[in-house]
Amino acid sequence: MRWCRFERGGVPSFGVIVDEQVCPVDGDPFAGHRPSGEPVALAEVRLLAPVLPPTFFAVGLNYASHIEHARERGYALAVMPERPEIGYRANSALIGPGEAIVKPADCTGRFETEGELVAVIGRRVRHCSREQAVDAVFGWTIGNDVSAREWQRSDRTLWRSKNSDTFKPMGPWIETDVDALAATTTVSLDDTEVARFATGDMIFDPYDYIREISRYITLMPGDVLWMGTESVVAMEPGQTVGVTISGIGTLSNPVELEKSSAAAEEK
Amino acid sequence: MRWCRFERGGVPSFGVIVDEQVCPVDGDPFAGHRPSGEPVALAEVRLLAPVLPPTFFAVGLNYASHIEHARERGYALAVMPERPEIGYRANSALIGPGEAIVKPADCTGRFETEGELVAVIGRRVRHCSREQAVDAVFGWTIGNDVSAREWQRSDRTLWRSKNSDTFKPMGPWIETDVDALAATTTVSLDDTEVARFATGDMIFDPYDYIREISRYITLMPGDVLWMGTESVVAMEPGQTVGVTISGIGTLSNPVELEKSSAAAEEK
Repeated sequence: MRWCRFERGGVPSFGVIVDEQVCPVDGDPFAGHRPSGEPVALAEVRLLAPVLPPTFFAVGLNYASHIEHARERGYALAVMPERPEIGYRANSALIGPGEAIVKPADCTGRFETEGELVAVIGRRVRHCSREQAVDAVFGWTIGNDVSAREWQRSDRTLWRSKNSDTFKPMGPWIETDVDALAATTTVSLDDTEVARFATGDMIFDPYDYIREISRYITLMPGDVLWMGTESVVAMEPGQTVGVTISGIGTLSNPVELEKSSAAAEEK
Repeated sequence: MRWCRFERGGVPSFGVIVDEQVCPVDGDPFAGHRPSGEPVALAEVRLLAPVLPPTFFAVGLNYASHIEHARERGYALAVMPERPEIGYRANSALIGPGEAIVKPADCTGRFETEGELVAVIGRRVRHCSREQAVDAVFGWTIGNDVSAREWQRSDRTLWRSKNSDTFKPMGPWIETDVDALAATTTVSLDDTEVARFATGDMIFDPYDYIREISRYITLMPGDVLWMGTESVVAMEPGQTVGVTISGIGTLSNPVELEKSSAAAEEK
């Protein structure tokens, strides 16, 4: 099943995608839903980030070659993780498919895309087994963990390097029937493939993380878990970045430069 | 005005507190509301965390003596911040007044309370001036940034040291008519005062933070900004910890030890 979230009469609604049509529902995929209204052509709706997570979990370094790449660039902390330790991103940075990634006017240095598999949690879990962790995943979507590297180096936290407005595209929808860990992730700039890796080639998989998180934290329906990337690619305003995971779909977003300079506000 | 959130018929509702009575409303304090139903005695309702923030911002080190304290304890990163750089906490860790702070069964080392002023955002702001930042604060509440220090040292992120379930008590309500930066914060264990400091004696104040955050991030109604603490006090299961800010109120929570050991689940 393929679940989306879209704008209907100015308010967000969940829907099921069947044959290029969106069938709207009342309710949500997790707590219950029923059909509501006529199907609409997928091409005619504005898709939103497919869920607003109660908690937005994100794995940092989770592919061996990403760690090597980061270490080469001078990130001393980029060592192989020994345990599945989770981090966070902010909902305020989420955008949907097709929305513009806006590079802040005063952002210098490498502006990079990280294409990631996203696990969407479907049920409340605490102190769960690996089997329960597998059952807790409702479906899969795609995230682009946009990163401003100079800020990542200069700041104490990831606040603006990872969480500036528009830095977290997610979508295009949640696919429930896919073997996501057997998939292939590809990243493209203006339709030219620039990276390709085995999605499941992770140091710790989603179930390792869910099990470990659940030792201390209750996971809730709608929570998302961004699984990290293998490939980091620089992008420029004017380009369109696409992240494709086979069996799920393509998350595509144009990149723009912020028009009104933040620097101007300083005066 | 004093706004609370409480459980009414099993669902959360906002209310206005007048003379020890809670006057329920439909809607919320930010987008609009109207009276709904009869007043209830404050003593008879179960108060909840006074808001579920769209984004949960938290300042780290923001009082000179806290930084000194942290440095003495071996936190090399505890240097005087030169800019207002924000961090985050997770909504999943929020609890309301009176709810138990649960120390995880396998949590060793110092288990500490950090009593903090919390600014509650009332309007959408982006690229705001200091004056607009002042206007953007709807009111004030109290947070207890419970921290497990061994995990803070051993882990890559603050995930379980700061964000384990129940580690973020907030409340008891939002006070809109108080000069919070002229207030006094006191922390008590079992009604014995163990710390006292001038709430406003911060390195960067809430308006500095809001202005700086808004250069890159849209703040939304209901967002909260935890302002850091001066005093860190160890607490033990069996004790009750109270954080009082003059003119706002007291946030009080008992501390318990987790009953079912997480370690047991490992088998």
